[in-house]
Amino acid sequence: MTPELRKDPVTGRWVIVADERGRRPNPFRHYEAAADDRGDCPFCPGREEMTPPEVLAFHAGPDDGGARSWRVRVVPNRFPALRIEGDLDKRAEGLYDVMRGIGAHEVVIESPEHDSDPARYSAAQMAQVIEAYRERTTDLLRDTRFRYVLVFKNHGAAAGATLSHPHSQIIALPVVPARLEAELAGAQRYFDYRGRCVYCDILSQEIADGRRLVTQNTEFIAMTPFASRFPFEVLVLPRRHDAFFWTLAKNQVEALAEILQDVLRRFRLALHDPPYNLIIHTAPPGHPGPEVYHWQVEVMPKLTDVAGFEWGSGFFINPTPPEEAARALRDLERFMDVPEGHLLQRPGAVRD
Amino acid sequence: MTPELRKDPVTGRWVIVADERGRRPNPFRHYEAAADDRGDCPFCPGREEMTPPEVLAFHAGPDDGGARSWRVRVVPNRFPALRIEGDLDKRAEGLYDVMRGIGAHEVVIESPEHDSDPARYSAAQMAQVIEAYRERTTDLLRDTRFRYVLVFKNHGAAAGATLSHPHSQIIALPVVPARLEAELAGAQRYFDYRGRCVYCDILSQEIADGRRLVTQNTEFIAMTPFASRFPFEVLVLPRRHDAFFWTLAKNQVEALAEILQDVLRRFRLALHDPPYNLIIHTAPPGHPGPEVYHWQVEVMPKLTDVAGFEWGSGFFINPTPPEEAARALRDLERFMDVPEGHLLQRPGAVRD
Repeated sequence: MTPELRKDPVTGRWVIVADERGRRPNPFRHYEAAADDRGDCPFCPGREEMTPPEVLAFHAGPDDGGARSWRVRVVPNRFPALRIEGDLDKRAEGLYDVMRGIGAHEVVIESPEHDSDPARYSAAQMAQVIEAYRERTTDLLRDTRFRYVLVFKNHGAAAGATLSHPHSQIIALPVVPARLEAELAGAQRYFDYRGRCVYCDILSQEIADGRRLVTQNTEFIAMTPFASRFPFEVLVLPRRHDAFFWTLAKNQVEALAEILQDVLRRFRLALHDPPYNLIIHTAPPGHPGPEVYHWQVEVMPKLTDVAGFEWGSGFFINPTPPEEAARALRDLERFMDVPEGHLLQRPGAVRD
Repeated sequence: MTPELRKDPVTGRWVIVADERGRRPNPFRHYEAAADDRGDCPFCPGREEMTPPEVLAFHAGPDDGGARSWRVRVVPNRFPALRIEGDLDKRAEGLYDVMRGIGAHEVVIESPEHDSDPARYSAAQMAQVIEAYRERTTDLLRDTRFRYVLVFKNHGAAAGATLSHPHSQIIALPVVPARLEAELAGAQRYFDYRGRCVYCDILSQEIADGRRLVTQNTEFIAMTPFASRFPFEVLVLPRRHDAFFWTLAKNQVEALAEILQDVLRRFRLALHDPPYNLIIHTAPPGHPGPEVYHWQVEVMPKLTDVAGFEWGSGFFINPTPPEEAARALRDLERFMDVPEGHLLQRPGAVRD
């Protein structure tokens, strides 16, 4: 079947129903570690013909434009959840709403090095990855069929990565995801009542309070949210109010690269290279209240059995108070100058 | 710390922050199969003193009241996410809302048999489990601090069960879970526009259409939802409109037992005893619009890597169209009369 976008008639949540995805390798896989796929990794340099032609690539330097010298490369997903061609064909099926699964699904290959890891990239490498997110988002939003661009990364097999070569994903959608709709509506309620951005207020309160701060720089803070759903969940908030991720300036790209790497290094040290998900939240293009929403990056290590109580009950129980998580991540500062290899050899120094 | 209920200032979602839960066995466990815990299972007959005193028990017969003759037993959770004593002490922390983690957390031990499974219970056993859900819900709602009672079951380690002895959980909460709030709001929107219950309309359309029907009896239908988030997700809807689960009559208890077992047997046959979550959705007590909501039971086998794309992106992709899932579960009918042991020995007969 052609992929479809179907709307839940009660909650309004859209779902992609796409049996094409079932044909990608091992779709019913159960959390086993990713196989060592180095031997035939389609993202490694020299195997560029294994992916569809690239839509963006950054190279090492202006004089080094050879096909294999790329540093960051963006390609269409080989197993896309959505199709790029066609119109939306919105229609009803009785009381249900459905449209064709039109959209784009791209993969950002973050590094030519198969065994690399964002926590270990150079600052310039990480900045190029963020710049790729920004450029692709801007480009995809030129297509008026798309109402949202979702940028996210799954790190580690337990967080959903099916290939170990470091990569992230970009999905352009003709609808706004339910989670974003809920955030936009909540931020609007707060704004209607108080006349201020709720995230700007959170920023002020958290900086003054300090208990949930993990790290900060000139442009961003990283904090554990007051109502964290998961242990060690981290929110990276820009100090400067802006609704849209893709407006970020060059110095913000660099500052975001710095703070994300700082957070990921802390995860690596404190939690022993945990699987994690990273998601960029932004207002949709043309959102009528740019003073209401505040773009942000969410980073969630996958430590507890998310599949368990929370899925079962629909209600979240977090066994690690965010103040304790923030303190543990802050306290790593005394180790952060030490080369990482040295650190990990100190038994018990970090984990307890 | 004392467990707290904390409200997300943007979305309004409540989270339990309870570091007590961290002390239960193996809280950071990663999806490994449950250990064979038969040797010291606290739910087995003869070890009743390993659990807190029971709050409800059904025995085999009226003349058989011995301590070890119970068929279904409900006890407080040894590692409760919430505390039963105290007042709510609702307060602000700057812009945040917080209250004490007051609530009840009980375990329904569904059978005296350690290796039993709901798909294999007698009809009477399953009816007693549902009757226990109903009685405990009614009793807990007498406490005016509670605004919702959540009944759910995690089957299998990958679905979050930490003990293999068959059990389910009941949580009484002073707040309504976000998911229910979203369903209530959506059902209200539909009702405001059309003057009818959205679930009653779904029921009519699905019965007439038939493509997503799995099975039905006099009181219930089991169907795969049009906008299913997960492969083989099943919704059990009562034919009779009622907002509240706990009003179900004796013949409905029996019919619900029958249809749930039917669904679980189909899962077992078609999907090889998958892990699953079962959740009862009901309107909260005193809900002002009983004509708007329609109680229901959701059963979700955990086949795909839920942790992956969906958590990563906040957007669901379902690789199995619900029409195909329903057809596969319906087509088992020709096998359902055959004893199960016989069936499972036919290689490939069911899975393909």
